[in-house]
Amino acid sequence: MLQRFDGQDVRNAYVRICDFIRRTPLEDSIYLNDDDHRYRFKLESQQLGKSFKIRGALNVLAQLPREQVARGVGTISTGNHGIAVAYAAHLLGIENCVVIVPEGIPRTKLDRIRFYGARIMTMGTSYENSLTLGLNYIDRHELFYVDPGDVDPRVYAGQGTIGYELMAVHGKVDTIVVPMGSGGLATGVAVAAKYLKPDVRIVGVQTAACPAVARSLADGICYSSYPTVGETICDAVVGGIGRLAFEMLPDLIDQLVIVEESEIREAFCYMARQEQCVIEGGSAMVVAAVRAHQELVGGHDIALVITGGNVDGVLLHDMLDEQVRAERGLA
Amino acid sequence: MLQRFDGQDVRNAYVRICDFIRRTPLEDSIYLNDDDHRYRFKLESQQLGKSFKIRGALNVLAQLPREQVARGVGTISTGNHGIAVAYAAHLLGIENCVVIVPEGIPRTKLDRIRFYGARIMTMGTSYENSLTLGLNYIDRHELFYVDPGDVDPRVYAGQGTIGYELMAVHGKVDTIVVPMGSGGLATGVAVAAKYLKPDVRIVGVQTAACPAVARSLADGICYSSYPTVGETICDAVVGGIGRLAFEMLPDLIDQLVIVEESEIREAFCYMARQEQCVIEGGSAMVVAAVRAHQELVGGHDIALVITGGNVDGVLLHDMLDEQVRAERGLA
Repeated sequence: MLQRFDGQDVRNAYVRICDFIRRTPLEDSIYLNDDDHRYRFKLESQQLGKSFKIRGALNVLAQLPREQVARGVGTISTGNHGIAVAYAAHLLGIENCVVIVPEGIPRTKLDRIRFYGARIMTMGTSYENSLTLGLNYIDRHELFYVDPGDVDPRVYAGQGTIGYELMAVHGKVDTIVVPMGSGGLATGVAVAAKYLKPDVRIVGVQTAACPAVARSLADGICYSSYPTVGETICDAVVGGIGRLAFEMLPDLIDQLVIVEESEIREAFCYMARQEQCVIEGGSAMVVAAVRAHQELVGGHDIALVITGGNVDGVLLHDMLDEQVRAERGLA
Repeated sequence: MLQRFDGQDVRNAYVRICDFIRRTPLEDSIYLNDDDHRYRFKLESQQLGKSFKIRGALNVLAQLPREQVARGVGTISTGNHGIAVAYAAHLLGIENCVVIVPEGIPRTKLDRIRFYGARIMTMGTSYENSLTLGLNYIDRHELFYVDPGDVDPRVYAGQGTIGYELMAVHGKVDTIVVPMGSGGLATGVAVAAKYLKPDVRIVGVQTAACPAVARSLADGICYSSYPTVGETICDAVVGGIGRLAFEMLPDLIDQLVIVEESEIREAFCYMARQEQCVIEGGSAMVVAAVRAHQELVGGHDIALVITGGNVDGVLLHDMLDEQVRAERGLA
């Protein structure tokens, strides 16, 4: 049994981090609304570091004892979590921050980690590989390991502040649609939102390319790693379920929606072209859920959590190109 | 001699509108900074309606007498100004709002004007054409005409709140780089910023495709309309100089920079791909100025005003496509 967290922990997290982060806007969709449904985007793509992950990182790092701050912190990441830890350490004045990455990480991500002052170390060729080697390094150097949302309830509570912020300001929201990778964000948001409004519905969305949370909950087995089948544009939400999410999520989630990659790609282009808002593939999942499975999502006043806006320019091009070329009658 | 405005007017405008608008972030560039220069983006692309123009519209409309609110308001626009007026009228509860547009306006812009509750009327085939017909309509129906930044000092003061907000929070900024179309924004920002910090430098940037402000100031002639030469991606900043800008700007502007369209296109792609921030062509001008003419821009702590983020998806595609195809060795 892992250490859990509750709504009070999220509220405390919010008090702890709110002076550092941005209170991100909840913006009306221009096109999705109809007489019976109001859809709004919670734009964590405008958060510091262009992703929600700084909320969890800040909540953990702000609680470190002074001796640990002096020794430093470290993590293993392929992207947004590493950027978030580097940024949080920078904001809190933690000088020794190491981000361990596998080979082949996009240059723009590495540049951001470095920009916020962290030291990058490349280890291994895959995340799993890098994780093993990295944990060993972090242990040997007595760094504090910043959990990406597996077991540390402080990380979950930090990410959950999105739900707290949302419901505290927009209490009429009756449904929150959350992208799921490890399920950590969904867990945090659900705990926070239901603390303020017990009957709010939480809809978790996953890609069919890697439905780890859905399979874990269905099978009652904690798939800490899970294979990705086929190509996906949701690189931020592949991998296994978080162990704490596995324990807590069954009591919290009201609806699971699995979306196909084709639906996600369509939603990605829809957001960029119609809503004029460039968001990550993982975030496009929640838009895909509304556009392709509105009846499953349900609700009347619906908030879609847009988790990040760090979109690779070539991916952005390729997604738009597919659609624009088809419209122009090209190959 | 037109009615002018001063720093106090901008401060009053800020007090008037600040509860409606977003205080937009000033975000560090990841790549432009060096030991001697810090460049930050003032992201009005995250403002309500994705453009700074709501600041001016709100400042005017919030001062209307009750009888005029009842009769209604109207404007003529090809894009962001129309969206801003519609949005501002919506926020202030002005029910009768008419936006008159020429034929051929992109659907996404019309959808937004309609979304915020304004009535759209199509008149004429060009802006000039639409302006003549539209002013006549507005006059006949006793609507209040919302000036886009030509002569109304309240609009200028409203736009200027960007400079007020910037310098009030980030007093160390020594240089502000502003895109120029009519020069209204530059005038407002300069008045506001110099009110708070008299020695701050204002750098105005224009496209070589339509350098109306630069030519007006050089020739001492108020070119209220000005031809566009060649293709431009800066549709929001073509046309003539504002008449009040023509009178006030000579005493306010410290440096003019003209950028070529090729430099703007490069800056547009740079922003989308490296900084991962999709901005309008008109806003990319200021980035082009820094990247191609750093010595003219000067300064050490430099704020670049990013005026808008309403980017047409096909334009976004075409810009990226040009660059990505070249990199891939395609045509």
